[in-house]
Amino acid sequence: MNRAHNAPPLSLNTVTVKERWGLAQCIEGCARQGIPGISPWRDVLHAMGVEAAARHIRDAGLTVTGLCRGGMFPAADATGHAAAIEDNRRAIAEAAALGAQCLVMVCGGLPPGSKDLPGARAMVRDGLEAILPEARAAGVTLALEPLHPMTCADRSVLSTLGQALDLCDALGEGVGVAVDVYHVWWDPDLAAQMARAKGRIAAFHACDWLVPTTDLVFDRGMPGDGVIDIAALRRMAEAAGYAGFTEVELLSRRWWGEDPEEVLRIIRERHAATH
Amino acid sequence: MNRAHNAPPLSLNTVTVKERWGLAQCIEGCARQGIPGISPWRDVLHAMGVEAAARHIRDAGLTVTGLCRGGMFPAADATGHAAAIEDNRRAIAEAAALGAQCLVMVCGGLPPGSKDLPGARAMVRDGLEAILPEARAAGVTLALEPLHPMTCADRSVLSTLGQALDLCDALGEGVGVAVDVYHVWWDPDLAAQMARAKGRIAAFHACDWLVPTTDLVFDRGMPGDGVIDIAALRRMAEAAGYAGFTEVELLSRRWWGEDPEEVLRIIRERHAATH
Repeated sequence: MNRAHNAPPLSLNTVTVKERWGLAQCIEGCARQGIPGISPWRDVLHAMGVEAAARHIRDAGLTVTGLCRGGMFPAADATGHAAAIEDNRRAIAEAAALGAQCLVMVCGGLPPGSKDLPGARAMVRDGLEAILPEARAAGVTLALEPLHPMTCADRSVLSTLGQALDLCDALGEGVGVAVDVYHVWWDPDLAAQMARAKGRIAAFHACDWLVPTTDLVFDRGMPGDGVIDIAALRRMAEAAGYAGFTEVELLSRRWWGEDPEEVLRIIRERHAATH
Repeated sequence: MNRAHNAPPLSLNTVTVKERWGLAQCIEGCARQGIPGISPWRDVLHAMGVEAAARHIRDAGLTVTGLCRGGMFPAADATGHAAAIEDNRRAIAEAAALGAQCLVMVCGGLPPGSKDLPGARAMVRDGLEAILPEARAAGVTLALEPLHPMTCADRSVLSTLGQALDLCDALGEGVGVAVDVYHVWWDPDLAAQMARAKGRIAAFHACDWLVPTTDLVFDRGMPGDGVIDIAALRRMAEAAGYAGFTEVELLSRRWWGEDPEEVLRIIRERHAATH
């Protein structure tokens, strides 16, 4: 299927080339390759400086489709939980300074040594409630990103789109969801939950599930190299009212080893071919 | 928590020591260690011979808590699908010959090269419908085992307990679920679905989720070494009417390297400590 003429606008998540390019190089690379969107991680943002980054991105005419990432609320003690909330407040300010379409929330796993999953989920909800007033005041949408269940222990106790939408229902205005096909493609309840997400999809991320997958974190595939029907998932998002960017976010030792310019070129090709 | 006096009966899944022990050694090991249940995989069963195995297990006084495994229905073509169904018919006959409490069904992933997840799910349902008359006639319960979503592409498009129970509802008599804590512990809908499973839990499997997990298939943890609240999940199963064995099933390169006699001894200890 080649529907390049219909492909939605493309955004580059900076983690995709993180081993070789800082944020300035990502911005310049997107401009060279005709990629109209960018989504920085906070490490490269801090390395460049928030003000300089905002100016540079604006000058390049790029849309900031998200800032990665807030969240990571569960902590072993109250001090840790409070520190997480403070860090999220800084992330909200940074997202506002960039004019980011959302702050992507990776909510966090179990605190070290804990088996208390309901407790960790409660800490996520408490943390989101604590930062929501600042987010609303800054006009920054908190995009709750359900992460693949294989990350439940150490990265995200928020595991399904349905669970994310339940949180949206509970929290109200200012909260949406980030749908990454890698995290949700397997879900038997996906079609129903995508329909339920109508008007609440703040970001749409793409990469692919490789067979075999050799690492639980760093073996994501280039769109088209795996088994996810990305076009079908994008159609579900569009049917739910999402008309924004598709952001390509690869955490991949294999692609980190390649020339970033070539990685961006391949992403453009695959983006056209898988949409 | 040490509640050894309350621990449910223990069963050994033979895959746990598969690198060093055949079925005869597993049977003798269980008898020596006072483990009252056993659940063979079909490879070691075939190596010993079904009749000999049935007699040997009966003589040792062990309960066969399950036969692993039927399923693997999705196929690239009709010939492959038909072959899978034939193999499942043989598995049903073997489970009946052993007097197994259930035939554990690992339903299968996407056919090679396919991205059609709804299509694979339909093949699973068609396959189950095809073999259900034989299973009912033989008195063999088909225990649908939802597998962790990280296995969706290559092992099981049946990913959640809710999805398994939907299939039970559709298929009717003779079908139940196998609950493996490793596969379901992360599920935000688990408590509700365990309650819904009342009267339909045919098997309860235990191992643990390690942090970090270094392999998607062969890095399961010994009960107590990971983050799963096994006792809490067992209580949910008991509240849903399950009073049977806890079967320990480890697929682990680390434990496959150890002396099986010692592995069985540690399993007994950990079983007492985690229930």
